[in-house]
Amino acid sequence: MAKTRKQSLLHLFNDVARIAKTFGMRLAFDEQDRAVLTLPYNPGLDHALDGIHGGIIATMLDNAGWFTSALDHDGDGWMATTEMSFHLLRPAAKTELTARGEILKRGKRQDVVQMSCRDAQGNLVAHGTGTFVLQDKISIGK
Amino acid sequence: MAKTRKQSLLHLFNDVARIAKTFGMRLAFDEQDRAVLTLPYNPGLDHALDGIHGGIIATMLDNAGWFTSALDHDGDGWMATTEMSFHLLRPAAKTELTARGEILKRGKRQDVVQMSCRDAQGNLVAHGTGTFVLQDKISIGK
Amino acid sequence: MAKTRKQSLLHLFNDVARIAKTFGMRLAFDEQDRAVLTLPYNPGLDHALDGIHGGIIATMLDNAGWFTSALDHDGDGWMATTEMSFHLLRPAAKTELTARGEILKRGKRQDVVQMSCRDAQGNLVAHGTGTFVLQDKISIGK
Amino acid sequence: MAKTRKQSLLHLFNDVARIAKTFGMRLAFDEQDRAVLTLPYNPGLDHALDGIHGGIIATMLDNAGWFTSALDHDGDGWMATTEMSFHLLRPAAKTELTARGEILKRGKRQDVVQMSCRDAQGNLVAHGTGTFVLQDKISIGK
Repeated sequence: MAKTRKQSLLHLFNDVARIAKTFGMRLAFDEQDRAVLTLPYNPGLDHALDGIHGGIIATMLDNAGWFTSALDHDGDGWMATTEMSFHLLRPAAKTELTARGEILKRGKRQDVVQMSCRDAQGNLVAHGTGTFVLQDKISIGK
Repeated sequence: MAKTRKQSLLHLFNDVARIAKTFGMRLAFDEQDRAVLTLPYNPGLDHALDGIHGGIIATMLDNAGWFTSALDHDGDGWMATTEMSFHLLRPAAKTELTARGEILKRGKRQDVVQMSCRDAQGNLVAHGTGTFVLQDKISIGK
Repeated sequence: MAKTRKQSLLHLFNDVARIAKTFGMRLAFDEQDRAVLTLPYNPGLDHALDGIHGGIIATMLDNAGWFTSALDHDGDGWMATTEMSFHLLRPAAKTELTARGEILKRGKRQDVVQMSCRDAQGNLVAHGTGTFVLQDKISIGK
Repeated sequence: MAKTRKQSLLHLFNDVARIAKTFGMRLAFDEQDRAVLTLPYNPGLDHALDGIHGGIIATMLDNAGWFTSALDHDGDGWMATTEMSFHLLRPAAKTELTARGEILKRGKRQDVVQMSCRDAQGNLVAHGTGTFVLQDKISIGK
């Protein structure tokens, strides 16, 4: 039986992507088909001042946007993140992080998605916006 | 003998920061005091399609901007990245990455820095711009 | 009798700011103290392909963020927009525009605000995020 | 005799675009085919504190990026600005402004361009980066 797009994406991230294992990130989708990324606290991702590095938070936002957009484009191709801007709104240290994506504009060839990242207490740690563009040639994970 | 700011920053990243070890990143400064980050290819940072994850490139850009700005603010405090925007200009796979920062506007309390990331062939992989703001209270690494 | 901050801001924009007259923009605040900017269709702000120029939409977003933040900082100083990123999500032509601000993170010295711009039919035309920083020295409009 | 793409673009902006007349902006191209926009000081574009409104600077950056990209895509279609991020680096008041575009990444369907805006003294007033995407359907000015 053919895998659904959602099953393929979950497999791709949770079983295949090496960065997911290195970091300890997990992907799920909520009931509205928005990607939800979780990352339990991993001391190996701290900067020298013992907080979680902003680049890790950017990675979470990027994943949340990418998978929210990818689920929406159930065709032959895959997406590429072409740009992202984000604000780090409060420091995060020694906490689990959860990131979610929400589509601002759905397009045939590209989506604009906003992403948020929260700590274990639910505080908004970061907010981002990115563009995810369908690539013609890449066909993987099927 | 007191460490210079530059020595403190190099120590902070190359010896203390756990993310630097996890990724395999190294910090140096060029002759114009711009931060230069290098990351030899690390398969553990690949996404599921076997390219280097955009979040890793964002981490490189953030570091390049932060350390370029931090070297410039030799006072009591440290910087925080408050926002960054970046464009991923071409895919990067199985390659060393090098990121550099260059100050666009030096301020008393904040700098705006542009950052570039190149692959081993010198191709421009990503470009970013960020704001790095002096924090009053943090005092570490001295 | 002293003007409230809100009265000062409304006066500043609706009676003083020359760009408001040139464009035809009006400022109000909604019941949650978010700035609401309106701009009736003004053909003089069209680009050569007869749509509303993206820079006009950026101006609306900037104003919506600035005044939402300024109302929140009822002290001696004024704000400066230090950076903004925005996505143009659909073309807008021959339509009134309405922009609103919403604070993502309130700070002592700076706010991060997200802004939206909609056409007369309520379609989301643009989304932006910006940083608005308190300036020590400027004291005007009082 | 057919107009060149460059002649069409110059005509489109300098003779047709109503926003160019309203603001007083002029378009040229330098010897490296980068768009150069100039705007003599126009008091009607000042904000209430008598500086040039950030949205005007955003408009200059957007134009500089758009026309640099448009000259590069001499085909059937036109470009759309899909996103832009910019930093306002110093206030500008009662000064001519000049904005220039420079392509960071040339693509078949989209360009990423960085733009700068300087005042009459040559100070860097703003820096931006944007994405300009080829639209299939629009065909105007030929």
